[in-house]
Amino acid sequence: MSVYTPVSHAELAAWLSGYAVGALVALEPVAEGIENTNYFVTTEAGPYVLTLFERLPAKDLPFYLGLMAHLARHGVPCPAPVADLADRYFSLLAGKPAALVTRLPGRSVAAPTEAQCAALGALLARMHLAGRSYRGYLDNPRGALWRRAAAERLRARLDAERRALLEAELAYQEGQRFAELPRGPVHADLFRDNALFEGGRLSGVLDFYFAGVDALLFDLAVCANDWCLVDPQRDRRIDPLRLGAMAGAYARLRAFTESERAAWPAMLRAAALRFWLSRLEDLHYPRAGALVRVHDPEPFRAILALRAATPAPPLP
Amino acid sequence: MSVYTPVSHAELAAWLSGYAVGALVALEPVAEGIENTNYFVTTEAGPYVLTLFERLPAKDLPFYLGLMAHLARHGVPCPAPVADLADRYFSLLAGKPAALVTRLPGRSVAAPTEAQCAALGALLARMHLAGRSYRGYLDNPRGALWRRAAAERLRARLDAERRALLEAELAYQEGQRFAELPRGPVHADLFRDNALFEGGRLSGVLDFYFAGVDALLFDLAVCANDWCLVDPQRDRRIDPLRLGAMAGAYARLRAFTESERAAWPAMLRAAALRFWLSRLEDLHYPRAGALVRVHDPEPFRAILALRAATPAPPLP
Repeated sequence: MSVYTPVSHAELAAWLSGYAVGALVALEPVAEGIENTNYFVTTEAGPYVLTLFERLPAKDLPFYLGLMAHLARHGVPCPAPVADLADRYFSLLAGKPAALVTRLPGRSVAAPTEAQCAALGALLARMHLAGRSYRGYLDNPRGALWRRAAAERLRARLDAERRALLEAELAYQEGQRFAELPRGPVHADLFRDNALFEGGRLSGVLDFYFAGVDALLFDLAVCANDWCLVDPQRDRRIDPLRLGAMAGAYARLRAFTESERAAWPAMLRAAALRFWLSRLEDLHYPRAGALVRVHDPEPFRAILALRAATPAPPLP
Repeated sequence: MSVYTPVSHAELAAWLSGYAVGALVALEPVAEGIENTNYFVTTEAGPYVLTLFERLPAKDLPFYLGLMAHLARHGVPCPAPVADLADRYFSLLAGKPAALVTRLPGRSVAAPTEAQCAALGALLARMHLAGRSYRGYLDNPRGALWRRAAAERLRARLDAERRALLEAELAYQEGQRFAELPRGPVHADLFRDNALFEGGRLSGVLDFYFAGVDALLFDLAVCANDWCLVDPQRDRRIDPLRLGAMAGAYARLRAFTESERAAWPAMLRAAALRFWLSRLEDLHYPRAGALVRVHDPEPFRAILALRAATPAPPLP
């Protein structure tokens, strides 16, 4: 359970008097989430999520919250930050920067169908199209610079086989020219548990707090490595049918460029490397005091090795 | 039925390709509404309302749509305009300025309970609080200037009794100093049919196309003259219980000033006069070619005469 900062009913009621959402009805801690403290909040105006930012730099919050507001007002079903009476998207609560966002209906799916992969592909394309007019800027905080720094911190902790895989992959990625690909704000963490479905419809995309500006193709690669596996536990090759559904639905709204098609195999490896590294960091440098379930890094090592060894299905 | 401008499925699908709301699924004309052409539109992203503006000046649309967007992002349940890929809230469709807004759930109520009057009062206060930070400006288009011009156009069409009531009321209203009351963006037309309830909750406030900047108290007076009647058909006195519920819920979020309490009886008369005049205009100067049901002006003549003769219940 990831509630780092307790908030009392009285404290929240007072804070909410600075909003136009009516009186506080209910407050309930949320067990999921490993970066921030979240509460489900109900007011006279409806259901919301309250997020207290535990370690994101406050200077980056306008990028994240502004992006969510921008996407929401373009019709993307993401949590929309609620502005307070001073027209701010966040302010201090219990000593932490805190934001109130709309709560979306639906549940995530463990084993996505082709239709659900297609729905996600279409939504990714809509996000990327809507993101073009967003003026905020933040480099992908888990981009190439971070990758090199993380590798530096981890190198000595890895066994010889893993170190060899890491060094080879870093060298391979240094030879890529992703900077030439179409860029824009990307979610960068759109795993199955960050998407909600309700009644067969993709009803929400959550957790934008790893977003940044990067190659748009990175988003699709992160999704392909999680949504489109033949079997997430036993066979982590990419299922051509699920990928075809996702990438095809994407391409109907935004066609891929030649450079994106060429970069696709390398981008799948870059996306796998990013999550292998962050999970290794969480394992070897655990966050002090956090009662947090650490994700096993091994599946992403396996995905990275597979993508390096086996050609990925091409983009449409 | 108020569809002045036909829009084809193909025409709309092409227009929607400039949005991030996915493909068009369904298009259905809306029978209600007398000012604009409305369609219910369903896309992959969900249900929307498409409005083609038939006679609002295009220069005023940024005020209306900006106000709705502002209120929506502060948590007020009103239709939120969807921005297109060029980040605009409206553009031409079938030769008319057109906007896509979110569609809200719920139904309007014909005979509001005290609880529903209280919900509306709280929502009005939330709208007024959230409206304080809105930077757009438009004088209430049915304010004092319009009132004098409308009276000028109508004078010769009225019988002696009605002319006398009108002249007396105009003279009375000239003596009021509403300009000193707290001001801000007001809805100015929040009749029962412009509010939606779902599951006991006020789920939406519609039709902001008479909004403008005016005394906040004007909104409450418009609502009191419609929501708080003892019996809308037979006894148009204000029911003190319904008004107490509405004004009490409002005052818990924004306390009335002394000047507002003093102005209340005159404001109820000003609100009745405004709708008597506009209905007389619709009757005597009908809109060319419109298949529109004209509201009978007589109930508002009766309300005006009643409010002038009988002291209104005071504000809390």
